[in-house]
Amino acid sequence: MNTLVAVAIAPCGTGDELSSEVAKVVDVIRKSGLKNRTSSMFTEIEGEWDEVMKVVKDATMILADKGIRTEVVLKADVRPGYKDMMDGKIDRLEKKIAKLNE
Amino acid sequence: MNTLVAVAIAPCGTGDELSSEVAKVVDVIRKSGLKNRTSSMFTEIEGEWDEVMKVVKDATMILADKGIRTEVVLKADVRPGYKDMMDGKIDRLEKKIAKLNE
Amino acid sequence: MNTLVAVAIAPCGTGDELSSEVAKVVDVIRKSGLKNRTSSMFTEIEGEWDEVMKVVKDATMILADKGIRTEVVLKADVRPGYKDMMDGKIDRLEKKIAKLNE
Amino acid sequence: MNTLVAVAIAPCGTGDELSSEVAKVVDVIRKSGLKNRTSSMFTEIEGEWDEVMKVVKDATMILADKGIRTEVVLKADVRPGYKDMMDGKIDRLEKKIAKLNE
Repeated sequence: MNTLVAVAIAPCGTGDELSSEVAKVVDVIRKSGLKNRTSSMFTEIEGEWDEVMKVVKDATMILADKGIRTEVVLKADVRPGYKDMMDGKIDRLEKKIAKLNE
Repeated sequence: MNTLVAVAIAPCGTGDELSSEVAKVVDVIRKSGLKNRTSSMFTEIEGEWDEVMKVVKDATMILADKGIRTEVVLKADVRPGYKDMMDGKIDRLEKKIAKLNE
Repeated sequence: MNTLVAVAIAPCGTGDELSSEVAKVVDVIRKSGLKNRTSSMFTEIEGEWDEVMKVVKDATMILADKGIRTEVVLKADVRPGYKDMMDGKIDRLEKKIAKLNE
Repeated sequence: MNTLVAVAIAPCGTGDELSSEVAKVVDVIRKSGLKNRTSSMFTEIEGEWDEVMKVVKDATMILADKGIRTEVVLKADVRPGYKDMMDGKIDRLEKKIAKLNE
């Protein structure tokens, strides 16, 4: 089942500058081979449910396996029959916004 | 790795009264054998990462496998060395709140 | 507009035991006069949008005003025409789950 | 207090193609004058807390005021002393990822 997620995985207790730990998380996601895109708050990943959730686990455990308390915030959109939602949703949305402002 | 999650799994496109579909979701979670608790916005589940994520998948697919667009919102707290966080966190919190008001 | 939220407000950078800071957050919410309920992952609050969001702000600023980086995760359910959703949603859900298992 | 949020505001009960309603939501955000950026799952907004939360309210009410049940999922990062986090966080992160792979 094709699954699009936005996920934020962050350490808790390593200080208030998180970029060193989050870099390790995003590095795991980028090396997964799944389509992904990082913004300032979330990383989007798209693929089959099991593939996506394996990457979310691997990226979480890169921190937790070192004994770090780790928070995961995830929002998934599972839409049967649809693929390439990461770009497709934006395309459909931008067309609708353009139409609103014609 | 012990994992506490709060998860909301909901159908999209079946009308604005969601309780019939959400009942099926929560029924899957309750029959999983994992500790769980449902509030008005989320269901908490606690167990090993793989066990918890299997239940989240099963509960999502009870809707998606019928062709329903399904949204998953999940927040996880993975804290190495801690168990029974569903009750433990509340106990520690209530003691601290009581102390604030002494 | 009646609004039900589940919100988690947490410090970032004060160590991995968060209960002292979260106690201050929940204390602000409890003293707000709005209906609220705390589980291990979120605190639910219900009231008019402006009232609820004022409490969310006050509870966030009890940490941020001390210079603490603060994370807010919030999910809101705004359903025109409905009141007392914190209990009403659970009541409707439990009836549907009971029916599934008749 | 400078505040960076990622927010998803969506109708519930208008069918499973949400783009027409979400277009109205994002249009309100874009016309707010605040810095913003839309991905396939969330729209990021940055500004003072009160400004950002006013836009979140206006964008929610563009749906709810028409009687539509509306869901808001929001994650905020409030970091005292920091500005332009929408770009700054990504810049710091990309440098750390590049360093990991030197």
